[in-house]
Amino acid sequence: MSQDARQYFSLPSPFRMKRGGELHGARVAFETWGRLSAARDNALLILTGLSPSAHAASNEIDPSPGWWEAMIGPGKAIDTDRWFVICVNSLGSDKGSTCPASIDPATGEPYRLSFPELALEDVANAAHGAVASLGIEQLACLVGCSMGGMSALAYMLLHPGSVRTHISVDTAPQAQPFAIAIRSLQREAIRLDPQWNNGHYDDAHFPETGMSIARKLGVITYRSAMEWNGRFARIRLDAEQRDDDPFGFEFQVESYLQGHAQRFVRTFDPNSYLYLSRASDWFDISEYGEGSIQAGLKRIRVKQALVIGVSTDILFPLEQQEQIAEGLEAAGAEVEFVALDSPQGHDAFLVDIENYSRAIGGFLGRL
Amino acid sequence: MSQDARQYFSLPSPFRMKRGGELHGARVAFETWGRLSAARDNALLILTGLSPSAHAASNEIDPSPGWWEAMIGPGKAIDTDRWFVICVNSLGSDKGSTCPASIDPATGEPYRLSFPELALEDVANAAHGAVASLGIEQLACLVGCSMGGMSALAYMLLHPGSVRTHISVDTAPQAQPFAIAIRSLQREAIRLDPQWNNGHYDDAHFPETGMSIARKLGVITYRSAMEWNGRFARIRLDAEQRDDDPFGFEFQVESYLQGHAQRFVRTFDPNSYLYLSRASDWFDISEYGEGSIQAGLKRIRVKQALVIGVSTDILFPLEQQEQIAEGLEAAGAEVEFVALDSPQGHDAFLVDIENYSRAIGGFLGRL
Repeated sequence: MSQDARQYFSLPSPFRMKRGGELHGARVAFETWGRLSAARDNALLILTGLSPSAHAASNEIDPSPGWWEAMIGPGKAIDTDRWFVICVNSLGSDKGSTCPASIDPATGEPYRLSFPELALEDVANAAHGAVASLGIEQLACLVGCSMGGMSALAYMLLHPGSVRTHISVDTAPQAQPFAIAIRSLQREAIRLDPQWNNGHYDDAHFPETGMSIARKLGVITYRSAMEWNGRFARIRLDAEQRDDDPFGFEFQVESYLQGHAQRFVRTFDPNSYLYLSRASDWFDISEYGEGSIQAGLKRIRVKQALVIGVSTDILFPLEQQEQIAEGLEAAGAEVEFVALDSPQGHDAFLVDIENYSRAIGGFLGRL
Repeated sequence: MSQDARQYFSLPSPFRMKRGGELHGARVAFETWGRLSAARDNALLILTGLSPSAHAASNEIDPSPGWWEAMIGPGKAIDTDRWFVICVNSLGSDKGSTCPASIDPATGEPYRLSFPELALEDVANAAHGAVASLGIEQLACLVGCSMGGMSALAYMLLHPGSVRTHISVDTAPQAQPFAIAIRSLQREAIRLDPQWNNGHYDDAHFPETGMSIARKLGVITYRSAMEWNGRFARIRLDAEQRDDDPFGFEFQVESYLQGHAQRFVRTFDPNSYLYLSRASDWFDISEYGEGSIQAGLKRIRVKQALVIGVSTDILFPLEQQEQIAEGLEAAGAEVEFVALDSPQGHDAFLVDIENYSRAIGGFLGRL
């Protein structure tokens, strides 16, 4: 059993949120790797996708593999011999940060749906507070993956001068209607599950069905048809893997989705999922540019940026990565744009380690 | 109130099915437009996608608009002044043909899940029977759209000499794993709805939630992200269109999906949906080619073919249209391949009437 390597940062109380709510006595969890230099100028912050924890990689206290294990460590692309790496669990996520499953100090009961409306700007501000608490005035690099890439844009825009360089991974300057539609349907699958019970579920009455459908829809949109043609084709399950249920699973791709869902449903708080999902829909950098994405991005000040995207990503399509690259360049950054054709879709950053390592390690190595 | 223009063909009893079952006293519904020539050589059969009825266009008896109204009629691309047009409701669909909601003559009760396993080959054979019953030995043209395109491939393969020319619209020679995953999740949404009750629902206890999720997922995959960027962008609903439900609909794209779902859920029998959905997953022309798609297609004999696909179709991608075109050409047909870039995705054949009319009308005009 590995120990918990989490540290916590207590947010200022009250912590005022973008959409008008506030939290009292809230905190965010984070983990770190490597050593902060005496000049405090080698910090690299990672903001995560919707569901990962702060445990991005193994460390001395918690040797279990992290969600980006292959990318972070001594001699790896994000080299912990050089960088002091921080990964913050998003505010609103249930992996140690204050979230809808947390106790509301005002009532002594879990917030559930009384948790204030959450925006990615709040996620960014909470992460910024954690970084500042470590005595770091400026990050050497801010890395944002998927939803974390949107949080990173908010971070840089709301805290000018707080970031020297930026790595944008498979993300978006605003949610497009296709992504909104997918996430809305995921939320609906949870909300329509009678066990969700307007957010008042417990372990004995848990919206497993809704969470399972939401997760499967997630996995379908995180990967790509091209990858699955090669990986699953039309391969059937062996007879002993099949059940007698009419309309039960028959193809390997169906049991692959089922495996993903089973591993996920009980490891993520459904209300937290709903809040973070909706925050992703709401995010729109053009709010800061009088309706223009480019004008919004132009307000971000970083010296250098690497923007990576994948042609097979249907959730955060390549054109959105191009928008980010163009906007940061127009804002004066020196921008490197890497368009990969990894077959794994949106999840390529977690799977195609070779290409992502080369791009990210190369960029960081040249700093 | 329009009258019903359906005619019926009684299938031979027993009607033996591909996967071993049989039906007794079964029938398929169809509608016709135009006049059959004395030589019976001007018949054009349309096989439909998963949910449409045989009412492809208005006619004298039923003047209500059909699902392909803009394409079929005097002077239109499928010109009823020249062609005797037939549209058959798929066996297993609840729009007049025998389906899981029909009464099983052996029990006097609806089949529900005791309906035999259904394959698209059965859909094809039933349609072929209806055509033969009209005294037509050879179709001048067989048109298959979406699922109906797969049924059409089965029709031509199983009934050599029965088709002179073919129009293949947005379909596939076999289901790919991405399409299987989507359909499997749609089926699961229905099956996991407690109201589905192992197929024993009724009007008072109807799996509306499951059908709604299934339909929304369908619409998401039938259209394209590109179309929605232009059509919905991030437009919000007006305040009076929104409800107070936490996580209720806020963006136009969400209410668009809701509208589609509401119009659909009570108009299609859930068990029929499950059977036809699974039949689509099962279809694989390579079964007739010792595992090779091209060898399977090579067994089809038609003189000329038009194969149309759309670059934005994520369910039946363009590469699958290319496979069909190549296979039919290798089999000796003169093949015209039209790759459109309509933004509407898989549904383009129902929406981008201008381009589909030009392609289909042009092909038929040159016959």
